[in-house]
Amino acid sequence: MYGLAERLFPICRSITGNGFRQSLEIISEIVPEIQIYEVPSGTEAFDWTVPKEWNIRGGWIKNLRGETIIDFNDCNLHVLGYSVPVHQTISREELLEHVYTQPEQPDWIPYVTSYYKERWGFCMSENQKLSLTDSEYEIMIDSSLEEGHLTYGELILPGETEDEIFFSTYLCHPSMANNELSGPCVQTELIKYLKALSHRRYTYRFVFIPETIGSITYLSRNLEMLQQHVKAGFVLSCVGDNRTYSMVSTKYADTLTDRVLENVLKFHYPDYIRYSFMKRASDERQYGSAGVDLPVCAFCRSKYHEYPEYHTSADNMDLISPEGLQGAYDVMVKVINALENNYFYQMLCKCEPQLGKRGLYPTVSQKGTKGDARYMQDFIAYADGRNDLIEISNIIDIPVDRLIPIKDQLLENHLLAIK
Amino acid sequence: MYGLAERLFPICRSITGNGFRQSLEIISEIVPEIQIYEVPSGTEAFDWTVPKEWNIRGGWIKNLRGETIIDFNDCNLHVLGYSVPVHQTISREELLEHVYTQPEQPDWIPYVTSYYKERWGFCMSENQKLSLTDSEYEIMIDSSLEEGHLTYGELILPGETEDEIFFSTYLCHPSMANNELSGPCVQTELIKYLKALSHRRYTYRFVFIPETIGSITYLSRNLEMLQQHVKAGFVLSCVGDNRTYSMVSTKYADTLTDRVLENVLKFHYPDYIRYSFMKRASDERQYGSAGVDLPVCAFCRSKYHEYPEYHTSADNMDLISPEGLQGAYDVMVKVINALENNYFYQMLCKCEPQLGKRGLYPTVSQKGTKGDARYMQDFIAYADGRNDLIEISNIIDIPVDRLIPIKDQLLENHLLAIK
Amino acid sequence: MYGLAERLFPICRSITGNGFRQSLEIISEIVPEIQIYEVPSGTEAFDWTVPKEWNIRGGWIKNLRGETIIDFNDCNLHVLGYSVPVHQTISREELLEHVYTQPEQPDWIPYVTSYYKERWGFCMSENQKLSLTDSEYEIMIDSSLEEGHLTYGELILPGETEDEIFFSTYLCHPSMANNELSGPCVQTELIKYLKALSHRRYTYRFVFIPETIGSITYLSRNLEMLQQHVKAGFVLSCVGDNRTYSMVSTKYADTLTDRVLENVLKFHYPDYIRYSFMKRASDERQYGSAGVDLPVCAFCRSKYHEYPEYHTSADNMDLISPEGLQGAYDVMVKVINALENNYFYQMLCKCEPQLGKRGLYPTVSQKGTKGDARYMQDFIAYADGRNDLIEISNIIDIPVDRLIPIKDQLLENHLLAIK
Repeated sequence: MYGLAERLFPICRSITGNGFRQSLEIISEIVPEIQIYEVPSGTEAFDWTVPKEWNIRGGWIKNLRGETIIDFNDCNLHVLGYSVPVHQTISREELLEHVYTQPEQPDWIPYVTSYYKERWGFCMSENQKLSLTDSEYEIMIDSSLEEGHLTYGELILPGETEDEIFFSTYLCHPSMANNELSGPCVQTELIKYLKALSHRRYTYRFVFIPETIGSITYLSRNLEMLQQHVKAGFVLSCVGDNRTYSMVSTKYADTLTDRVLENVLKFHYPDYIRYSFMKRASDERQYGSAGVDLPVCAFCRSKYHEYPEYHTSADNMDLISPEGLQGAYDVMVKVINALENNYFYQMLCKCEPQLGKRGLYPTVSQKGTKGDARYMQDFIAYADGRNDLIEISNIIDIPVDRLIPIKDQLLENHLLAIK
Repeated sequence: MYGLAERLFPICRSITGNGFRQSLEIISEIVPEIQIYEVPSGTEAFDWTVPKEWNIRGGWIKNLRGETIIDFNDCNLHVLGYSVPVHQTISREELLEHVYTQPEQPDWIPYVTSYYKERWGFCMSENQKLSLTDSEYEIMIDSSLEEGHLTYGELILPGETEDEIFFSTYLCHPSMANNELSGPCVQTELIKYLKALSHRRYTYRFVFIPETIGSITYLSRNLEMLQQHVKAGFVLSCVGDNRTYSMVSTKYADTLTDRVLENVLKFHYPDYIRYSFMKRASDERQYGSAGVDLPVCAFCRSKYHEYPEYHTSADNMDLISPEGLQGAYDVMVKVINALENNYFYQMLCKCEPQLGKRGLYPTVSQKGTKGDARYMQDFIAYADGRNDLIEISNIIDIPVDRLIPIKDQLLENHLLAIK
Repeated sequence: MYGLAERLFPICRSITGNGFRQSLEIISEIVPEIQIYEVPSGTEAFDWTVPKEWNIRGGWIKNLRGETIIDFNDCNLHVLGYSVPVHQTISREELLEHVYTQPEQPDWIPYVTSYYKERWGFCMSENQKLSLTDSEYEIMIDSSLEEGHLTYGELILPGETEDEIFFSTYLCHPSMANNELSGPCVQTELIKYLKALSHRRYTYRFVFIPETIGSITYLSRNLEMLQQHVKAGFVLSCVGDNRTYSMVSTKYADTLTDRVLENVLKFHYPDYIRYSFMKRASDERQYGSAGVDLPVCAFCRSKYHEYPEYHTSADNMDLISPEGLQGAYDVMVKVINALENNYFYQMLCKCEPQLGKRGLYPTVSQKGTKGDARYMQDFIAYADGRNDLIEISNIIDIPVDRLIPIKDQLLENHLLAIK
């Protein structure tokens, strides 16, 4: 996963344009089943309109001695996202009106955009801004903002049923690592994992979209189908650093998605952080909006907005790690396995079965000798048709992945049925 | 409000009689729409009977040298409420059997009554009692206890619907300030506020009654109508000091009244005290009794029974203040506005609307720049038809009065509807 | 109760056999209505089979000098429960493979059984084991394991209705006091108490069974009837020491049994311990198993598994006491009285009744004079047909046994009805 991130990092992406297309093509080399869609500028999507397509080739500020102050080729965050083209010599004062910095993080270049109002601008560190002492500068942005397309990718892995598990990640930020590439890289690896499964209960749907306008556009074309089929969904965002685990609950924190993710995280990493829906800021905003109401949580390591490097040049390849990506991947694999096995179970015999005669229980009864047989007894007690596997796990406080072999043994012994 | 309290303070009121009538007439000068009702003694009211009417002109204890020890004219708490007339010379021992004090508060005269058993008695401070060292005293109570009437006032301000908000306060205590006059004064001011409104969604009903027997009598005549129409109700009692805010919950703490009052108080004064229904002692007892079950909370500043001056001569005009009364009034105005705006709201567009194009959202996206736009987004998320305004306020933790302009903006932009 | 325990203590009981029968006969002398049932070995009971009957006459280990090391006659825990007969001279090494100790409690003999696999063995203290230094020993167990019967006792006291309260205790352990005899002794005393009642609302069913296989066998013969009639049930186990009180909740902790036992215990002994169903280990395991789902809690003083002497020779007559047994008995009597009076109550008058005219309320009103009249007022408020007596007790925080005379007074005054 880290290797893919390294390959994608240098590309300047935005919500539309060739950077997005190029990134998606690289991912398609790994999972060629991705279907790529192009939606024309001007297309209406609920209350929104697909914007013009933005492409950028370069941009710089030079002093009048011809010395480069900042250059897009050094760091593609230097140009305000969706800047219109400009080339002129202007006074320092006028330039400063178009300069964006993050003063409280004076060494880092902030990531700033202006998608829905035409502007031009430069982003730089506060310290770079303080060094702008000449009276005039030459500035250039070689970009285009024209009718074009919004691009997104979609991949569907059919399962035994039409019930779907939905994964969404975005691919619209320029060179940032955790808040951009970690999501697509983990999602790509999950696709590989699911493709390799011999049997899938659920159909799995994955989208690679631009944030906000992408999810709105996707929803405007697929809402009814998603509302009918999606049983759980996840926005993968900022899943590459190795500091913590976190999730953003759905609006009422009561869906299967909340339940499975809380369950896996509490056993995997008990100190995980559960943010309320009030802390949403990625595509779960749209998936959980009034009238859409899909059961979608965001899953993060360090959550967007909550770590210092967020939306700056410090969100670079040093911030993420193979271990960080792997940790997020492992959680999602546990989530998938929990969902695949999450049935309501019903014991077939009344009273406890005699586990001893099947070799599932010690035959000498002395205090302190029961050990793991206890887990099976507790599973049996709550396998009364009222609880799904996640609920049983919560009640008896044993991880789902330790209960899966137990229910398999009981199914094999014809003591248990799926209800 | 304080001025009205000053005017009413000297009058000796009881659950029946001319003091009550005189007080109600003074209030009628301010809000002449009050309808005054006279209910004859002996009238049955559920399990109770309207008692005889009590009037008092004077009362004193003198020593045999003609020196006045205590005099009703100095403080009308000196005569036991509902005392029968008496005039005789009696021994110290016999007198002491008719003397009521509050020994743990030795400087204050307690307020004591005997409505339902005929007695005579004097109330005095414990220190005054200790000074009664003569062997005989002359005592006089010039009162009458005769067939008459129970008096109460009612005022109805019609609204757009027959659904009612109910306010109840009592006017039956002699010269006490917080636990008597604060309630009628705040209620009178609220009537003025509501009369001045150009539009009222709810019909507002106000009663000025004697405590307990008054609410029972009122309920016995209006129960079915109240049960049909009252959506929320408040007993205003002890709303004049400036020390805290408090409320008494309904029996199951689950009505609209509980919800709106808790919501307003937690934002207005987070340290407010919520007493359970077990701490009820004013007319909410009757409104919430089995078989009546009206959604009525008591609202107080320092709650009756809970402040030291309660039911003593120390509950005087120094205990209440213009600021204290104003604070209670302000809470009730917020409550009324929350109720008037408390609809279920439903967004009309799917996904978040594009607020930026309507000037409701910043057009540059940089971390830390959203500010108050966040409140609108959170309101929008929960305006899904499942929550009324109070519930949205509770979930997103923003006061209702900050949400009202937000929902008005959305209504104006045709993005929102009342469900 | 302690005397009965003393009489039963020396008998060597097991899940089948003459020790069980002899113990049951002694109890029958006190409550002769007990019906005794004999179930043949080999009888199927759900997933289980009634085992062979085990009887034992003696057992010992001697060194080759003829000196007795341990002897069944000194302590019947010395022989592994359900040991097959054996008599031979064997090496120390071979003997040690058949010796059971509790090393962390080196002075106590553990209680160990092997019901469902044929073995022989000796139990001794760790210190005794360490003293086995000879190279050979003569060992003897004079037992029989043959087709026979499983014995249990059942006693039914009919009530006004067919709704049942169920009590279950086990009688299958050899000489242990708290974890064996306390339950049957308290249960026998409760039968005497209930027989003496002039009126019983509920039918009471008591069983004296061997643990696990006994409850499974009993359920296999009576399940449908029990599911139809049992409204609350209790396993009495370890109810003889005087250290604490505890209970094991049902699977979802939501039955009448949970409610009444929690209610009584919180007032009787607020520090009582409530164990979740995950801590079950006696017959409540079967009564609460999937498909059986009877509302049965375990009631204990110090709970099995949780006190150090559990399942060792230290669980002797010094561990239990008359006070300990009495405390458990008192709780169960309170539970029975709460259940017998646990109706939904409904006030017959609207508003509070006038308690004063019936002598139920003070006629002088002064702060601090209401006292216990408050309890009646609070009962009245919640006697609105929505709450049973236990719920009212919980809400107003007054023990049920203080509410019973209050509701009786109100019933007598025709102010209250059973709904």
